[in-house]
Amino acid sequence: MLLRGRPRALGAAALLLLLLIGFFLFGGDPDYGRPRSRGAAAFDGDPPADPGGHNSSDCIPPPPLPPPKCELLQVAIVCAGHNSSRDVITLVKSLLFYRKNPLHLHLVTDAVARNILETLFHTWMVPAVQISFYDADELKPQVSWIPNKHYSGLYGLMKLVLPSALPPDLARVIVLDTDVTFASNIAELWALFAHFSDKQAIGLVENQSDWYLGNLWKNHRPWPALGRGFNTGVILLQLDRLRQAGWEQMWKLTAKRELLTLPATSLADQDIFNAIIKEHPWLVQPLPCMWNVQLSDHTLAERCYSEASDLKVIHWNSPKKLHVKNKHVESFRNLYLTFLEYNGNLLRRELFGCPCPPPPGAEQLQQALAQLEEQDACFEFRQQQLAMHRVHITFLPHKPPPPQPHDVTLVAQLSMERLQMLEALCRHWPGPMSLALYLTDAEAQQFLRFVETSAVLSARQDVAYHVVYREGSLYPINQLRNVALAQALTPYVFLSDIDFLPAYSLYSSLRASIEQLELGGKRKAALVVPAFETLHYRFSFPSSKAELLTLLDAGSLYTFRYHEWPQGHAPTDYARWREAQAPYRVQWAADYEPYVVVPRDCPRYDPRFVGFGWNKVAHIIELDAQEYELLVLPEAFTIHLPHAPSLDIIRFRSNPTYRDCVQALKDDFHQDLSRHYGAAALKYLTALQQPRGPV
Amino acid sequence: MLLRGRPRALGAAALLLLLLIGFFLFGGDPDYGRPRSRGAAAFDGDPPADPGGHNSSDCIPPPPLPPPKCELLQVAIVCAGHNSSRDVITLVKSLLFYRKNPLHLHLVTDAVARNILETLFHTWMVPAVQISFYDADELKPQVSWIPNKHYSGLYGLMKLVLPSALPPDLARVIVLDTDVTFASNIAELWALFAHFSDKQAIGLVENQSDWYLGNLWKNHRPWPALGRGFNTGVILLQLDRLRQAGWEQMWKLTAKRELLTLPATSLADQDIFNAIIKEHPWLVQPLPCMWNVQLSDHTLAERCYSEASDLKVIHWNSPKKLHVKNKHVESFRNLYLTFLEYNGNLLRRELFGCPCPPPPGAEQLQQALAQLEEQDACFEFRQQQLAMHRVHITFLPHKPPPPQPHDVTLVAQLSMERLQMLEALCRHWPGPMSLALYLTDAEAQQFLRFVETSAVLSARQDVAYHVVYREGSLYPINQLRNVALAQALTPYVFLSDIDFLPAYSLYSSLRASIEQLELGGKRKAALVVPAFETLHYRFSFPSSKAELLTLLDAGSLYTFRYHEWPQGHAPTDYARWREAQAPYRVQWAADYEPYVVVPRDCPRYDPRFVGFGWNKVAHIIELDAQEYELLVLPEAFTIHLPHAPSLDIIRFRSNPTYRDCVQALKDDFHQDLSRHYGAAALKYLTALQQPRGPV
Repeated sequence: MLLRGRPRALGAAALLLLLLIGFFLFGGDPDYGRPRSRGAAAFDGDPPADPGGHNSSDCIPPPPLPPPKCELLQVAIVCAGHNSSRDVITLVKSLLFYRKNPLHLHLVTDAVARNILETLFHTWMVPAVQISFYDADELKPQVSWIPNKHYSGLYGLMKLVLPSALPPDLARVIVLDTDVTFASNIAELWALFAHFSDKQAIGLVENQSDWYLGNLWKNHRPWPALGRGFNTGVILLQLDRLRQAGWEQMWKLTAKRELLTLPATSLADQDIFNAIIKEHPWLVQPLPCMWNVQLSDHTLAERCYSEASDLKVIHWNSPKKLHVKNKHVESFRNLYLTFLEYNGNLLRRELFGCPCPPPPGAEQLQQALAQLEEQDACFEFRQQQLAMHRVHITFLPHKPPPPQPHDVTLVAQLSMERLQMLEALCRHWPGPMSLALYLTDAEAQQFLRFVETSAVLSARQDVAYHVVYREGSLYPINQLRNVALAQALTPYVFLSDIDFLPAYSLYSSLRASIEQLELGGKRKAALVVPAFETLHYRFSFPSSKAELLTLLDAGSLYTFRYHEWPQGHAPTDYARWREAQAPYRVQWAADYEPYVVVPRDCPRYDPRFVGFGWNKVAHIIELDAQEYELLVLPEAFTIHLPHAPSLDIIRFRSNPTYRDCVQALKDDFHQDLSRHYGAAALKYLTALQQPRGPV
Repeated sequence: MLLRGRPRALGAAALLLLLLIGFFLFGGDPDYGRPRSRGAAAFDGDPPADPGGHNSSDCIPPPPLPPPKCELLQVAIVCAGHNSSRDVITLVKSLLFYRKNPLHLHLVTDAVARNILETLFHTWMVPAVQISFYDADELKPQVSWIPNKHYSGLYGLMKLVLPSALPPDLARVIVLDTDVTFASNIAELWALFAHFSDKQAIGLVENQSDWYLGNLWKNHRPWPALGRGFNTGVILLQLDRLRQAGWEQMWKLTAKRELLTLPATSLADQDIFNAIIKEHPWLVQPLPCMWNVQLSDHTLAERCYSEASDLKVIHWNSPKKLHVKNKHVESFRNLYLTFLEYNGNLLRRELFGCPCPPPPGAEQLQQALAQLEEQDACFEFRQQQLAMHRVHITFLPHKPPPPQPHDVTLVAQLSMERLQMLEALCRHWPGPMSLALYLTDAEAQQFLRFVETSAVLSARQDVAYHVVYREGSLYPINQLRNVALAQALTPYVFLSDIDFLPAYSLYSSLRASIEQLELGGKRKAALVVPAFETLHYRFSFPSSKAELLTLLDAGSLYTFRYHEWPQGHAPTDYARWREAQAPYRVQWAADYEPYVVVPRDCPRYDPRFVGFGWNKVAHIIELDAQEYELLVLPEAFTIHLPHAPSLDIIRFRSNPTYRDCVQALKDDFHQDLSRHYGAAALKYLTALQQPRGPV
């Protein structure tokens, strides 16, 4: 997270310290003689110095230790905001990929990050991972008095308070910045605690830049540090010893003293850690350099990895992150992208050889899955219904709309092939939106770039994008709708579909209608927005109801699915709508599936409907069964744009088994309806038995 | 690859042997007391036996050795056919992911696999990987005399001849089945060669089923083996020692002798390896079980991994592969899917600390990339042009069409969002097709499932699908066309686009036209197939030219892009085509981009055109410059179906920089054209300077 390095030629003092640190690391191991001489050659031809009389090199790892089998490893991370939350997930993916131990993650978060990460880990269901949250905002007062110039802000200082913030019985923890990537098993890092002497309490890798040498530019006055100092992107903290040593007093005293002569910290917590270590060098256990390979601009890290075939942790500690210039950055980037794009579902694999309680709900899910029969013709549907989708809410920065009593959020869901609808949708709907996107991890990154390169989309902060990660072969349409619906923050929602563009005036007219009709107060109603369709890509969107009627009469527009599925919208009564000046009530009829505006606390969609068919119909039945009035708005309209048929529709049309399975879902649904609403549900069953056209 | 186990209840003899092996595993090592007693408990309480009097612990991993730094590791794999080629790539991805050493892969392949893998590795450009091919068909006579019941056929026996087939100076090699997945660094496996005694020459993991105990069913007579025998999915071969020991004679003698009483091998090479080892037990070095965790049905492998947090190699040795039933299969499957879906481009990362020559062409590419400037407005275009795409030709089984002098292959390219076109295309074009698909590794698997579940597609063996792996943000349309074109195997090609459906009669009428016009003989011509479009998804495709003209007159069809880009097809002269009874010649004009039939050796598409715009126009100019006659066919037609605009078209329309970059590509192209064709290219430049509409 922190930029900590712009190398220059090394001074003699620095060299001395470097070698001293090397001694700490490898003193006495004769195997490390060769790399030292090569490492020394990198220092501008200076002759190798050997002040300690030891043959050491700080960038060669000690032989790997066998990781302690099944020991619970403790990890702490400070994380705030939408972007850091995405970073932390990539870090955790790399961590989980290589780990073979149970983990306990201690996450110090602001409200935004907590909201995101709590949902994510809950839906991720990774075995043998415990999560604890700590409120960063509560900890703020402990560090807010420190003037800090680093871009990470107050959160950058928060690692200082971990010994008191974490549970008192927690003795050891590995602390990680959000911008590190693991390339190895964290148990090997944990095993380095065993190298600590009785007094050492902080394990750190040397800073791989010359920042703390103070010779980077004229009048550069860094905080005091031992030689090149240490980087705090990866820390082994012996919490019990720090508490015993009076850590809280210690760091506050040091910070206050230095702040008498220095105006502020430049590198946040790292400045203070270094000042303390300078004062109490017995506290620090230097770690092998490959446990924190720092890719700041002009980093000196190459000395570390040019000798090592075995990099352990990569630290993207330049504000340029992946765009940092570095001869080898392509290789590091590939490692990072591996985890950025990695299908996180695959990390749900259990740890062999370590008995661990399964995550909440996992056992029931396993049992339900085990009861499915692969021979069942609808196996795919049943499996899809049981799929537990990872959910990353507010994937991009999002500002909730200021609370307004009649505000309405557009709710919809989509996958990659409908991304091109987003810009047009933003132009048509200037209000808040809550959109669920069904994506793979790799697609989520493509989506991110798509938004970043779109001026229209990146200008909008009131559109919340919730990524639901793909799993299974059928589109879980109602589960997606429920995610988007649950995240809507206004009192009302407009339940739309992504291939519709609303009238330009719809957002403002809906708010007016909600107010006029006193919705939410006495009245329990669903406002119907009449739906139309065009069959042409290029068409000029009507700016008024009058214009729309002209296009309708000219045959340029139709009422929605007039040719294929008229019963879906017939109850809206388009003939009446033509003339209507005021909202009018309509009655439910079989297969009715209008687009409606309802209070946020409306019934959820039935998640059993996956793939194509009947998913919205069931929801309208539920509204009717709960006695929502259906009120058609006289000026409102929305228009469907053409698109190639989805793979699910194609399968529905071409595959009789698929249709049979949808029928089976309908039957199940009706049974549940009868159970729930009793005689009141009779009308739905009766309607079902009328002879009709295809579904 | 091999099914080697169908356990039943254990007989007493089996029990004894099992315990014997248990002893091999855990005897003598005090650290393994706990697992041993637990292992013994699984044996129904029988006391441990010690028939051999050996105190070896040959199946427990020795503490991990530091892998020999930068040593070149040798790996041999036998691979034949389209499906095994896909398997081998997944195996190699897992291998490369964890490796830190340079590798030399020795691939014993049939012609199909060689064609696929040669193209793949050439375009993959992974540093520090050498590839050698060996012709499996040449080796066949050495094993074809052995009667073999195993489904792998003759190729299953070919591991026996590796000591003579591989280069005589190759001393050691790791031999792998195509159905294994690595979960660790292969250098750790290679390091086990160091444990071989002076005489041992074959390192193997015990077979994790009771097959060789011969008690699986009545009259089951397996080949002779030491106890439970060994599995040959992972072999460490000390080739030099085998050659010295007279391996060729040895295995042939054993095989012939056993075949006097046994009718055939059941498990291919594995039967013979086991018979030899039974006879010469000093040859074998047993390897720790986790180096070949065998997931056959009812495998006994759980004994191995329930104790190990650290699995090294997974072996899918059931014909059911991923569908095998096993309590833990979900976890193993996740590991396998990790590599199946892994973006292979990310494996292009160099090995740090090992100086290795870069793969051919990599250095020039690096230099070209290094010269690009991120500030350049067209940086994205230039980067995309340099992208080296991995290419997997004939991703699915494919039978080349029998050679016919006038046959014609439909050539097109697509990405995921056009998959739904494939079935319709197959119905319209009964002839051979060569299609390039632009996919991620994960999408390639979705595509595979899509074809497998489509009756229409899986019935066709004359459609060749070539996967070009995605890299970069712009669609490399002409590179894709060139891949599909290069793989067409008929003398003529119809250069189409995926969103067009040809007339049902086109395939047969084209062959007739080619014959009548004596194309390819004296005449150098491009046959123009007139293009039309419908704006409706649902439309009934005209079965004749007469029907098409009726639809055209009714306004249900248009000539292609009549509204937006008439100059693209104007020279086809639709008015003349209405009346034409015979082919007629037309002249090139600016921006002409008809769909044409040409000999396979026609000019390639210009790969500099990426994204949207001008990619086909440039190709027609090239044809005209090379003096291809343009002959319009009077009965031929093809119709464009509507689809949502691609992201590239949207960017073209909305982004002036994008259009400027396309213009820059055009300018470059014209400069090259002038250089190449001199004065003859003048007419293209002149045409360019005429005032016209938008691109």
